Amino acid sequence: MTALPAMDRGARAARVRDAVREAGCDALLVTRLVNVRWLTGFTGSAALLLVTPGDMVFVSDGRYGEQAREQLARAGVDADIEIELSMAAQRGVLNGRAKGIARLGLEADGVTWAQQRSYASEWFPDAELIPTEGLVDRERQVKDQGEVARIGLAASIADEALATVLRMLAERPTEQAFALELDTEIRRRGAESNSFETIVGSGPNGAKPHARPSERVVDRGDLVVIDFGAKVDGYCSDMTRTFSIGEPSPTQARMLEVVGAAQRAGVASVAAGVGVRDVDAAARGIITAAGWGAAFTHPTGHSLGLEIHEHPRVASTVDHTLVVGNVVTVEPGVYLPEHGGVRIEDTVLVTSDGCQPLTHAPKLCVI
Amino acid sequence: MTALPAMDRGARAARVRDAVREAGCDALLVTRLVNVRWLTGFTGSAALLLVTPGDMVFVSDGRYGEQAREQLARAGVDADIEIELSMAAQRGVLNGRAKGIARLGLEADGVTWAQQRSYASEWFPDAELIPTEGLVDRERQVKDQGEVARIGLAASIADEALATVLRMLAERPTEQAFALELDTEIRRRGAESNSFETIVGSGPNGAKPHARPSERVVDRGDLVVIDFGAKVDGYCSDMTRTFSIGEPSPTQARMLEVVGAAQRAGVASVAAGVGVRDVDAAARGIITAAGWGAAFTHPTGHSLGLEIHEHPRVASTVDHTLVVGNVVTVEPGVYLPEHGGVRIEDTVLVTSDGCQPLTHAPKLCVI
Repeated sequence: MTALPAMDRGARAARVRDAVREAGCDALLVTRLVNVRWLTGFTGSAALLLVTPGDMVFVSDGRYGEQAREQLARAGVDADIEIELSMAAQRGVLNGRAKGIARLGLEADGVTWAQQRSYASEWFPDAELIPTEGLVDRERQVKDQGEVARIGLAASIADEALATVLRMLAERPTEQAFALELDTEIRRRGAESNSFETIVGSGPNGAKPHARPSERVVDRGDLVVIDFGAKVDGYCSDMTRTFSIGEPSPTQARMLEVVGAAQRAGVASVAAGVGVRDVDAAARGIITAAGWGAAFTHPTGHSLGLEIHEHPRVASTVDHTLVVGNVVTVEPGVYLPEHGGVRIEDTVLVTSDGCQPLTHAPKLCVI
Repeated sequence: MTALPAMDRGARAARVRDAVREAGCDALLVTRLVNVRWLTGFTGSAALLLVTPGDMVFVSDGRYGEQAREQLARAGVDADIEIELSMAAQRGVLNGRAKGIARLGLEADGVTWAQQRSYASEWFPDAELIPTEGLVDRERQVKDQGEVARIGLAASIADEALATVLRMLAERPTEQAFALELDTEIRRRGAESNSFETIVGSGPNGAKPHARPSERVVDRGDLVVIDFGAKVDGYCSDMTRTFSIGEPSPTQARMLEVVGAAQRAGVASVAAGVGVRDVDAAARGIITAAGWGAAFTHPTGHSLGLEIHEHPRVASTVDHTLVVGNVVTVEPGVYLPEHGGVRIEDTVLVTSDGCQPLTHAPKLCVI
């Protein structure tokens, strides 16, 4: 981990302060833990971060005192750390620190309605709460060098883990057994965890795009969809490969061919200045032309980073022009219950003249 | 899985309908996925469930059509299943089905403030949105026989997994390597996953109650806190054991003795009719009397089931009287950075005359 490039958290806080000001707020209460982590390096499960023009106040509970002090120091973050056992005491601290703040931004997609009601009536009764949406998250869309290195390392670990366990697919494992081998290999190679629950969908299960691994035995004649990723220092990778166990049927072969072509077209269209809806259209057009448009039941991709699903999605309904540093997936699929499913996915980094794939496992088809 | 007792989801829906009526609502929009699962058996990552006095409308997206139809049928749930690709189409369906509903309950702790604003202005502009808190969750506090069997099986798998890998602790593994062995063994034994990220905290790391496994080597002289669980059919177990690698120092020995006594006192106090704050006091009193009250920095326990942390917590600030069918943890701890941490935890089922521990791993101390 020490070999990974450092991340400049000071620059992040400065960008967030600009965004807070542009949103017409005097300060922002960061409640989404992933945003707290991005700004401070804190990885625990409970924290609040008050970002004012002049300082940051980090609040957590007794479980996390030691850890917070260590992690914020290691990240070089200059924040006042307040550890309070009870919510009442945390409220007292933040109420005091928020004195004089007239317009307090609150992450509308990072607090529950119940929390907002409590913040408004009990925590910050003197402030006007301004709903912000994606204010910090938007700053996270452009990944810095340290973040790309972490996603890239996660992707490499996933590549190598798949290569190591792949031959087991021919030995009639259950979906669960194969997923366990893959997941274990990912951690053996130094990832802290999977980036999400591995999908191994064989035969009819593959036609459910988000099937959980079952006790079904992977057998000849199956298509097997394997969608998985690794997590390194909090950063996610994401990749899908589909394999035919034995020779595919003519329909299966055509599915593999069409989805493969759609995926390559999608990747080829990715570049700074291109709209995500154009990437979706590039992939979807090929599947639609093959007559399977209705069987491609999800958007073409999504962004990722500290979260496996980040905005912008790569979808026909999304208005976003890609910029250098975006990291997105391209993952078209076709799902036909009687034949199985095919999905092929890479994670790619947007560059000025195209994109750089971070996932590299061969797109072999037949095992 | 087929050997596990079935769960009566019809009875659950009836109880929720009663609670909805008592809350003064005409219907409830269930947004918390865990509550959707409890009511319908659906395990996917996106769904909404509208519960009216006469019917249930289940809405999800194109990824989950097949899965939803299968899982709801298997659970014997009588709901209208509406699969819509876009949020706009989902909104249209629910808007239509909510016609005539004057007071619509919305899970205030299960929607973000942003979602609530959208529901109020766009989805259900004709209804008054009533914030409900814990309405479905409270019904989940009393576990039925099927749920206890699942938690019990998860706990047994965790017991056996620990017994299998425990000897490795004496072989100087890193925290991460030991956690990986334990996690892999849990899945090998049929659990679908861990119930949360395993904690292996050795030496000074053990003094951080929620430390993530690190590359630190577990060595002689360490106390090692191992806090982990398994998940079976969605249901969680939770157990902590602390081991001394080699003979403990006098202070470490005293920590083990005091926390062990506190944990036994806590478990001995659990019974239907007892307040959770009395359970907390039973455990905390012993630690405080030993002079370490300030080093016990968290509540004594929590409830669990489909979620690893459910209400009621077992805490001095919580006003809840235990009833038969509650499942709670008892997990006092003492954390001293210079000596390490000790936490001992069992998951117990509340019975009429006491409690039945579901976790059984020996509370060995010295390895």
